Amino acid sequence: MNAEIIAVGSELLLGQINNTNARFLSAQLASIGVNVYFHTVVGDNPVRLEKVLEVAEGRSDLIILTGGLGPTKDDLTKETIARHLGVELAIDEAAMKSIEGYFLRTNRAMTENNRKQALVLKESQVLPNDHGMAPGMVLTKEKQHYMLLPGPPSEMEPMFTKYGVPAIVARMGEQAKIVSRVLRFFGIGEAALETKLDDLIECQTNPTIAPLASESEVTVRLTASHHSEDSAVQLIDELEAKIMERVGNYFYGYDETSLINELFKLLKTRGLTIAAAESLTGGLFQAQLTSLAGASGVLKGGVICYTNEAKINIVKVRKETISGAGAVSAACAKELAENVAELLGADIGISFTGVAGPDELEGQPVGTVFVGIHVKGKPTVAEKLQLAGTREINRVRAVKHGCRLLINSLKE
Amino acid sequence: MNAEIIAVGSELLLGQINNTNARFLSAQLASIGVNVYFHTVVGDNPVRLEKVLEVAEGRSDLIILTGGLGPTKDDLTKETIARHLGVELAIDEAAMKSIEGYFLRTNRAMTENNRKQALVLKESQVLPNDHGMAPGMVLTKEKQHYMLLPGPPSEMEPMFTKYGVPAIVARMGEQAKIVSRVLRFFGIGEAALETKLDDLIECQTNPTIAPLASESEVTVRLTASHHSEDSAVQLIDELEAKIMERVGNYFYGYDETSLINELFKLLKTRGLTIAAAESLTGGLFQAQLTSLAGASGVLKGGVICYTNEAKINIVKVRKETISGAGAVSAACAKELAENVAELLGADIGISFTGVAGPDELEGQPVGTVFVGIHVKGKPTVAEKLQLAGTREINRVRAVKHGCRLLINSLKE
Repeated sequence: MNAEIIAVGSELLLGQINNTNARFLSAQLASIGVNVYFHTVVGDNPVRLEKVLEVAEGRSDLIILTGGLGPTKDDLTKETIARHLGVELAIDEAAMKSIEGYFLRTNRAMTENNRKQALVLKESQVLPNDHGMAPGMVLTKEKQHYMLLPGPPSEMEPMFTKYGVPAIVARMGEQAKIVSRVLRFFGIGEAALETKLDDLIECQTNPTIAPLASESEVTVRLTASHHSEDSAVQLIDELEAKIMERVGNYFYGYDETSLINELFKLLKTRGLTIAAAESLTGGLFQAQLTSLAGASGVLKGGVICYTNEAKINIVKVRKETISGAGAVSAACAKELAENVAELLGADIGISFTGVAGPDELEGQPVGTVFVGIHVKGKPTVAEKLQLAGTREINRVRAVKHGCRLLINSLKE
Repeated sequence: MNAEIIAVGSELLLGQINNTNARFLSAQLASIGVNVYFHTVVGDNPVRLEKVLEVAEGRSDLIILTGGLGPTKDDLTKETIARHLGVELAIDEAAMKSIEGYFLRTNRAMTENNRKQALVLKESQVLPNDHGMAPGMVLTKEKQHYMLLPGPPSEMEPMFTKYGVPAIVARMGEQAKIVSRVLRFFGIGEAALETKLDDLIECQTNPTIAPLASESEVTVRLTASHHSEDSAVQLIDELEAKIMERVGNYFYGYDETSLINELFKLLKTRGLTIAAAESLTGGLFQAQLTSLAGASGVLKGGVICYTNEAKINIVKVRKETISGAGAVSAACAKELAENVAELLGADIGISFTGVAGPDELEGQPVGTVFVGIHVKGKPTVAEKLQLAGTREINRVRAVKHGCRLLINSLKE
């Protein structure tokens, strides 16, 4: 099955946003064995959209459109498709109820144009929108499959994963099974990792090996194809074992996970609680942890000690530590970790203090960070990092290093 | 002049990277009055690239291609164009010298395949590459202009700005100037906003009005076209004034900004400091604030009081408040805001307490949030929100509401 992704929206053509939907969908489609040969972006213009559809019909089996399903007048995707295919639009009762429910829950009056969002192509399979109002849909007409998805990534991504992928797989028929697995590494660069796996990458055929650097991490996607799913999994298992022999000490998790998620699972399994004292990270560690449902079971809370006064007065770091070793020091990181655990009554304390940038601090260069880790019953430790990114990248990396250090410390 | 941007590269179709080049070029082209009507992405495949070129020639005057100019075997853009247009390739001496110089400077041996990068289309205008090796080029053939640019943004962006834009402007002749402005709104839905602007949108021609919902906000893009830039700006000013009359109380900023950024600027201008007590947001407010360079000038710090013990022991919320009104209450939010300001010695205290989900708390449904705001010398206030998103969306929205409330409170 060959796919084309058409994003509809003048904001893309004006360069106001990136077409991240095309990237997301392409990666998802690759993982289920659908070839994507074209991306197209067209504005909120029905004439040009229809021409783009005609071009797509001449070269692609599956045409996925994102955007233009909203309530406003410039949202014209489904109206254009309906006219183009000669299909009528009709109110979908389930979608209508979901939209009305949304306004009831948020206690707001529903304007009439919101009803437009419940209109779907007749005879299409409706894809529910669990994170917004406009439903998606799939329609098969002659040789082509058309899938319409909302534009906002927060709605489109979960809709595609939950409802879109099964709808496509159901239309693919008997095919070789494609099994994909992502290995996630932290603490090693892409080039260094690739060098270590060079001969494996060189002779790859099935499974394929695709390293990718993103957000200070490296992922390696293994994709195997076999008529038996079990055999595809076995091919991947064997290759994974070879990779782990070489770079296993940088590995932290599979597929859609993150360092904070791995830390959270570990704390939950062990029944341990944590508290955090954050200076340069300013709450980023705790904000990430509390983004996970069930965080209240492990996080006691913490202190954002952005100033020396907060470090001294609230977290009770000794004045001599600040005036001696400095706020950006191993000594300060250790006191912060120990004291915040005690203050919050947690089993574990973690601390972040350093120089995010853009300016240096206490004569320490930008990117100098100390992470303190206190685990009940173990000696408190602090690790110095020397990061080389922008302010925000340094903060994000500091949190990742903190997670990695604590995971290692707990697994020792 | 109507343009189309064609990105060449299989990594884009596999979803490994975003097509940020299309965004960059679109924004640049809009600013010089070139309409971009299409983006296309195609893989490193000469047959499909040639078909994409044929489609583009049927609808666009200026065809800009990015990628595929490098030294390796899968870099085929200029070879494909040469064959397609019946134009020969020839070594460009200046480019060859520049490539040899690059290897001399970096003290590396030049491999033979690097010579391929100095090949350019005969009769084309060569665009020097000041940040890499492969030169760009522009060729006018029959009615079309073809511009070839390297794929890496670090080479493409400066090349386009310095050499590409003048080359296009030289081919444009006299043209209208396009001026664009984005107005940002929070606290009103896209449909409700459009209802209020319905008649303005209905009769829009110049400027055009394009509302867009994203991340719990609505933006309205105004775009005017006029041969005088001043007149285009004036057209936008007049329309903006009409829009502000109707929905100005939801407006918070222009173009590339955010609520946290507007709050930060306001605090800095007023010379005010802030502290935060965060329960359901778990540090998200402070993490956002500290992502901005200079945050240490306004943020004293704060407490992540995820448990009732932390609220009572550290932020000194009265036990009776928790046992009476509850942790998720206006009373608790007010005490948190007042006490955290005092604890950190800040002019302003802000607090967030509520039910992020997925489970209800204290009999309060998911999405119930209280934001407390204490500004020195004013009565402390708390506002109840009823949010209807997922856990993470509720946390993000709570922070945005907090920023908006505090901005309003300071501007009163």
